[in-house]
Amino acid sequence: MTPITHNIGILGAGQLGRMLAMAGYPLGQKFGFYGFSKDEPSALLGHMFTHEDETDTLEALIDWAEIVTYESENTDLAVVRRIEAAGVPVYPGPDSLYYSQHRGREKSLFRELDIPTASFEVVDSLEALQRAIKVIGTPSILKTTTEGYDGKGQYRLQSPADAEAAWQAIGEREAILEGFVAFRRELSIIAVRGKDGEMVFYPLVENQHHKGILRLTLAPAEAIDPAIQQAAQDYMRRLMTRLDHVGVLTLELFETDVGLVANEMAPRVHNSGHWTIEGAQTSQFENHIRAITGLPLGSTQPLTSWCAMVNIIGETGHIKDALRLPGVHVHLYDKTERPGRKLGHLNVVAHSAWAREQALAALAPFLPAGG
Amino acid sequence: MTPITHNIGILGAGQLGRMLAMAGYPLGQKFGFYGFSKDEPSALLGHMFTHEDETDTLEALIDWAEIVTYESENTDLAVVRRIEAAGVPVYPGPDSLYYSQHRGREKSLFRELDIPTASFEVVDSLEALQRAIKVIGTPSILKTTTEGYDGKGQYRLQSPADAEAAWQAIGEREAILEGFVAFRRELSIIAVRGKDGEMVFYPLVENQHHKGILRLTLAPAEAIDPAIQQAAQDYMRRLMTRLDHVGVLTLELFETDVGLVANEMAPRVHNSGHWTIEGAQTSQFENHIRAITGLPLGSTQPLTSWCAMVNIIGETGHIKDALRLPGVHVHLYDKTERPGRKLGHLNVVAHSAWAREQALAALAPFLPAGG
Repeated sequence: MTPITHNIGILGAGQLGRMLAMAGYPLGQKFGFYGFSKDEPSALLGHMFTHEDETDTLEALIDWAEIVTYESENTDLAVVRRIEAAGVPVYPGPDSLYYSQHRGREKSLFRELDIPTASFEVVDSLEALQRAIKVIGTPSILKTTTEGYDGKGQYRLQSPADAEAAWQAIGEREAILEGFVAFRRELSIIAVRGKDGEMVFYPLVENQHHKGILRLTLAPAEAIDPAIQQAAQDYMRRLMTRLDHVGVLTLELFETDVGLVANEMAPRVHNSGHWTIEGAQTSQFENHIRAITGLPLGSTQPLTSWCAMVNIIGETGHIKDALRLPGVHVHLYDKTERPGRKLGHLNVVAHSAWAREQALAALAPFLPAGG
Repeated sequence: MTPITHNIGILGAGQLGRMLAMAGYPLGQKFGFYGFSKDEPSALLGHMFTHEDETDTLEALIDWAEIVTYESENTDLAVVRRIEAAGVPVYPGPDSLYYSQHRGREKSLFRELDIPTASFEVVDSLEALQRAIKVIGTPSILKTTTEGYDGKGQYRLQSPADAEAAWQAIGEREAILEGFVAFRRELSIIAVRGKDGEMVFYPLVENQHHKGILRLTLAPAEAIDPAIQQAAQDYMRRLMTRLDHVGVLTLELFETDVGLVANEMAPRVHNSGHWTIEGAQTSQFENHIRAITGLPLGSTQPLTSWCAMVNIIGETGHIKDALRLPGVHVHLYDKTERPGRKLGHLNVVAHSAWAREQALAALAPFLPAGG
């Protein structure tokens, strides 16, 4: 086969691995997944190295793979170090994981790199939380330092009197108190860095959440001043250079009256970048594979100014209606229905603002009521 | 999972199966392949029911699959009938295969349906060939009635004296003598018919061959009179209705001074439709899966008027250069290099005639010299 081909091991076998593989096969790559069971979304899309039965298949993955990447910022660093010790490179590297999987480290890194972020204090006791409230004030948000996602592990404090309830709600564990940010919109930016340091940037997108879960992305975000896009790209450049990052990096941001405020980053392809499959010249998935295999990065240009992504949450009910809509693309993950679960997404590539509005109106059954 | 999900068995495990599967997974489908070895292009993209070791795995495929389709018009009809007898539907049905896999039957069907085609005679001896030459004349082309593809099994007669050489060249077997068609361009049309009889049509495309192998498709074909597109669609409508066809059907046509002349059909996704992956609203692969699973068919609209497909034949040499070109998409099939072998293709989606010319000029190393 061609010299650009590699055996790529993915830690995790969910929808992100599935979409990475589907983007990588056309580039001649082969995929293997280190997952829990043969029922996971990636299971049919490559070799499965399952470890549900406590048999350690990590050695088999290491023997097979020439490059390893991962689906989650919560990937065990010890596993990554073991793979690297065996001579198989892991991208993005351990630094990207180390900073991403702890909100305290992450926000300290933002501060170090002059990337605006909310005021914050890491606390490890109720007393420390009460002291932090005096500095940060209320309203503010208490979050676990590790493992929270989709709005889990968070508690919003309205007044200092909420301290004890907040401390109990997050499970009396290490946490970070973050000052409240009055934002107009939630945005995110996805960037890609190659092994040779080449960097490309997707446009800022707008993300709308409901009960902590992303429901809608509008791409590119509307009415973004070029200086704001440049600021976001500068932040990404600083982060990726500092981390020697290889692959996709995502940064969630708040748009405020005084500019962008960084919320959190993820060293991986991201739900807010799913629109790129049909909406951009090169998808985030393909660019991640290009980056980690040392191929030239692809254009991040959006195909139109009116793309969107609607998550399919909990049930797939109206999917046949969605298939009838022009410019709408269905992406299911082969997961069973369960309330709050991400089962798939719908990409909209419209050729006018009006056409996107029409499409989103037709997709209303997939969106939260009233929003 | 959702009620739209099926286990789809594909007879064959080459690049067409590979691309069908990649188009079908986002629709929530699962794939299994009835192939020869675990090294085939589809092998990593679903269950493999291999039969290289003479163990018959067809029963296992039948047990697993809820719907079966195939990659080749040369699929064994006996196998299809065995699958249907076991209660698993095969799409397209046996009629589509029966007519497609024999040039004599195929051309008789064109005649029956008033679809213009070259004059022809089926011959089974040198004497019959000599008689046919008196009717058809020369120049004319002698082709085996079955199994020829990519220009194999064909011999061009310049004069009646070539009869014996032609008869020997094609192996002294049943053949069809076809009158020479003076054509301006080679075109093809791809259409899709659903289980409910719904039909959609892609635009006519222009195909350029070299040594019998497709090298370049321009999509849509330029300067096609709407009446010509309508004529092609009418032919497809007649064929698909007559055959009760379900899935994709391809018809290769000659453009002549007196209109379209049908050359041959294929009851499957086709190399001249590969441009649809990025070039059309819905790819031929996705629409085939939609058709055979009973889902609504998707829009066949091209995204621009200047799409193209360049086959990668024999070697993948300049693939990194192709990856750097905006609007160019790489599709490799995971096949080892060998002269004349289809290893992949490059899709071009350009936004002007000029941009397509630029892209094709940059892709010249993948095209035959001088053409």
